[in-house]
Amino acid sequence: MPALENYRRELDYSYAPGAFPTLEALKKHPDAVRRVLISSKAGDSDGVGKIISLAQRHGIRIETADRVLAKISGKENCFAAAVFEKQQADLDPQGDHIVLHHISDQGNLGTILRTALGFGYHDIAVIRPAVDPFDPKAVRASMGALFSLRLREYKDFSDYRKEFPQHAAYPFMLDGSVGLDVAAGSAVRPVCLIFGNEGSGLPASFGAVGQPVRIPSSNEIDSLNLAVAAAIGMYQFRR
Amino acid sequence: MPALENYRRELDYSYAPGAFPTLEALKKHPDAVRRVLISSKAGDSDGVGKIISLAQRHGIRIETADRVLAKISGKENCFAAAVFEKQQADLDPQGDHIVLHHISDQGNLGTILRTALGFGYHDIAVIRPAVDPFDPKAVRASMGALFSLRLREYKDFSDYRKEFPQHAAYPFMLDGSVGLDVAAGSAVRPVCLIFGNEGSGLPASFGAVGQPVRIPSSNEIDSLNLAVAAAIGMYQFRR
Repeated sequence: MPALENYRRELDYSYAPGAFPTLEALKKHPDAVRRVLISSKAGDSDGVGKIISLAQRHGIRIETADRVLAKISGKENCFAAAVFEKQQADLDPQGDHIVLHHISDQGNLGTILRTALGFGYHDIAVIRPAVDPFDPKAVRASMGALFSLRLREYKDFSDYRKEFPQHAAYPFMLDGSVGLDVAAGSAVRPVCLIFGNEGSGLPASFGAVGQPVRIPSSNEIDSLNLAVAAAIGMYQFRR
Repeated sequence: MPALENYRRELDYSYAPGAFPTLEALKKHPDAVRRVLISSKAGDSDGVGKIISLAQRHGIRIETADRVLAKISGKENCFAAAVFEKQQADLDPQGDHIVLHHISDQGNLGTILRTALGFGYHDIAVIRPAVDPFDPKAVRASMGALFSLRLREYKDFSDYRKEFPQHAAYPFMLDGSVGLDVAAGSAVRPVCLIFGNEGSGLPASFGAVGQPVRIPSSNEIDSLNLAVAAAIGMYQFRR
């Protein structure tokens, strides 16, 4: 078997660091898991026992790999990781979509994936340039939610829109013309909820896409944190 | 003047690293700002010009302090910081309160403070043991929202409750007996919204405090991220 490399975007595989994300990978996408890495310091903790039995059941190779674990997680106490194949999924044309435009922070992206799953959204479009959704830091921040979602990267928004022209589009903008409650209350299904970059938000051109939405908030802050804004939008628009 | 020290909890002052948090400190609480630190690499950028003119207007000492800035921010490109006096505030007995019980992550705490301000909550109780709300990392994550809020630390929840026995209490719990929409729709004012630790949530004993609330979410995730859950709660309970 080839030696494992430090993660970089060009690789066709990535790492899910941590016992919880590793378990999620094995439960939800065992077909994508190439190997499981275990720390020699892991001991007999519950999570690791479950990981080993699940990997064995699916005939997945298990390795003790302390150095690789420390390297990919940047932590000394990472006890397990799944090595998994990166896969672009086909989004469900009937499903509500979450569209993330030029997101730049791995933690935000991971938190948004976890929240999406929590509110029943299973289809995620990532519009580039953006942070790599398969980066181990994003996978860890998602708590493994990535493995329960369909996710596809697009080179720009028009590529996404050409594929799904019928979705009722709701770009979230500070100057959106309709408040969140009203927009969600009158939503036509399926929807796509569009969220922009942490610093700059969505470009003004999105004002002409569907129905721009505003989250009502006080003028005492500039804007909400992106993962917070996306969570409130997804919560209010949930079915 | 005494030399500035690395931040630690015992000090009676702290640092607000970054141009934006420094500006917030100078605008909202100039009385608490002891000095302003500027990097020699700051140049003539807008933020720094405003910082200098505001500090001068309030007679606040300005220092060039590259080494201290790098040390307190952990970053090479931190161009400004306010040195401010830590103050415990008196919470408004008529105001809605956010109660944070045993929070352990500085980023979460800061994000919650920023979100609270965004939805019009100005009174925050931090129940110890908890992360230090005056830690520079928390101040930075709050984007300086700290300086627009009244915040007080309590040694336990009963100390807080003795001071404000009349607030309608809503502990957020995974097994809360009432859904968020219903609870918020029938809320008696003023309220206190109570959020627990990132990993363990609130102790079961909070089931007997006021009206435990549940955020409806799918069973595909264990729980929402704390800052996300708090944001959704605050959004739904806003006046």
